[in-house]
Amino acid sequence: MHDFNYFFKGDSDIDSPTLEALLKQVKTIRVKKGDVLQQRGDEQKHAYFVKQGLLRSFSIDQKGKEHIFMFAPEGWIISDIQSTAVHSSAALYIDALEDAEIQLIRDDLFEELVQNHIGSHPDFARLELNRLLRRIGVLQKRVLMLMSASAKERYQEFTATYPSIQRRVSQKMIASYLGITPEALSRIRVGLIKSERSLSEKG
Amino acid sequence: MHDFNYFFKGDSDIDSPTLEALLKQVKTIRVKKGDVLQQRGDEQKHAYFVKQGLLRSFSIDQKGKEHIFMFAPEGWIISDIQSTAVHSSAALYIDALEDAEIQLIRDDLFEELVQNHIGSHPDFARLELNRLLRRIGVLQKRVLMLMSASAKERYQEFTATYPSIQRRVSQKMIASYLGITPEALSRIRVGLIKSERSLSEKG
Repeated sequence: MHDFNYFFKGDSDIDSPTLEALLKQVKTIRVKKGDVLQQRGDEQKHAYFVKQGLLRSFSIDQKGKEHIFMFAPEGWIISDIQSTAVHSSAALYIDALEDAEIQLIRDDLFEELVQNHIGSHPDFARLELNRLLRRIGVLQKRVLMLMSASAKERYQEFTATYPSIQRRVSQKMIASYLGITPEALSRIRVGLIKSERSLSEKG
Repeated sequence: MHDFNYFFKGDSDIDSPTLEALLKQVKTIRVKKGDVLQQRGDEQKHAYFVKQGLLRSFSIDQKGKEHIFMFAPEGWIISDIQSTAVHSSAALYIDALEDAEIQLIRDDLFEELVQNHIGSHPDFARLELNRLLRRIGVLQKRVLMLMSASAKERYQEFTATYPSIQRRVSQKMIASYLGITPEALSRIRVGLIKSERSLSEKG
C-alpha cells in the first residue's frame, strides 16, 4: 500500500512510457535499525520514501548534541530540502530508527522530471506543488510553535502530527524533537495524564 | 525594478495573452506605516510582493506577545502559506513597518495558474517549484537554528538573511524575530562590536 509510485501518481493521468522509465530508477532497499543513510557533508543526496519502518533526520550541534528535525513513518518522504535547494552538500543526518523498507529517489530524478517533463505531465507539477505547500505549512507552524508555544502545546502538536509513532520512539527522542529535556517532557506527560483522569472522574 | 511580473516571469517564455490577463489582476497599492494588511482569522488571503518599503508577518500568543515570523523588504514575497496550504483562515498578521508600495496577488490567482495553465506554461511551474524549494530551505534552517544555535549565531544568520534592514527595524523587533529578549540582543551586539574592535586592533 505504501509505495512511492502510488503516492506520486495518486489519481492522476501520469502513465507515459517516459515517466514509467524514470520511476523504474526508484530503487527499493531494506535497511537495519541504526543504519545511517545520509551524513552531513554528503554530496549525493536522496529523498527517501518509507514503505515500512521509521526514519528520522537530525543535526548535531557543536557540543555534539542531536536535534531531531523530523520523523518519517510509513507513507512519509524524508529528505534534506535545504541543501537540495541551494545545491550544497548535506546539512542533515538521516538514519533508521527501525528495520525499514524504503525507496530511494535521487535528487536529479526530481530535477529531470521538473526540467523535462512538466509540460507534458502537468499533474506531476500539481502534485509536487501541493506537496511543497503542505511541507511549508508544517514548517511555518513548527517555527511559530518553537517561538511562541509552551512545551505542553508543542507535545500535543507532536502527538497530532505523529499519532502512530509515540510508542515507537524513546522519550529522549521526542524531547529532542520538541527541543526540551526528557525531564520536562516527563513532567508534561504526568500533568496530561492527571488532567485526563480528573476529567474522566468528573464526567 | 522590483515588480512581481518581472519577478514572476524572470527570463522565461511566459508571454501568452491568457497569462497577461491573469497578471493584470495583480493590483498595485500604496500603504502607510502601521497599516494592517491581514489579521488572524481573515478568509480572503493574498501574497504581497514588496516593490518598495517593508512588511512583516507575525503571530500573537495567548499572553498577547508578538512573535515575528518574517520580514519582507523590497523584492520579497510575503504570505501565509500555512493557511493557504490547508485552506483555513489566516494564522498570521501582516502589517507595514514603513510606507510601502506593494502588489496584491490573490490566493485563487495562484490556484488558477496551477490548475489551468501549468501544462501550457511549464516555466511557471518551474519558477514556482524553485521558489517553494528555496522557501523550505530557509524554513528548515530556521527550525534547526531555533533548536540548536546560540542566540549569537541566530543574530548573525539574521544579518546575513536581511542585510538591508538592520537599521530599518527596532532592536525590539529583531529580538522578537530571534526569539530572545531585547536585553539579550543588546549583549550580543556589544560582544560582537568588541570582538570586531579587538580583531582590527590586532590586524
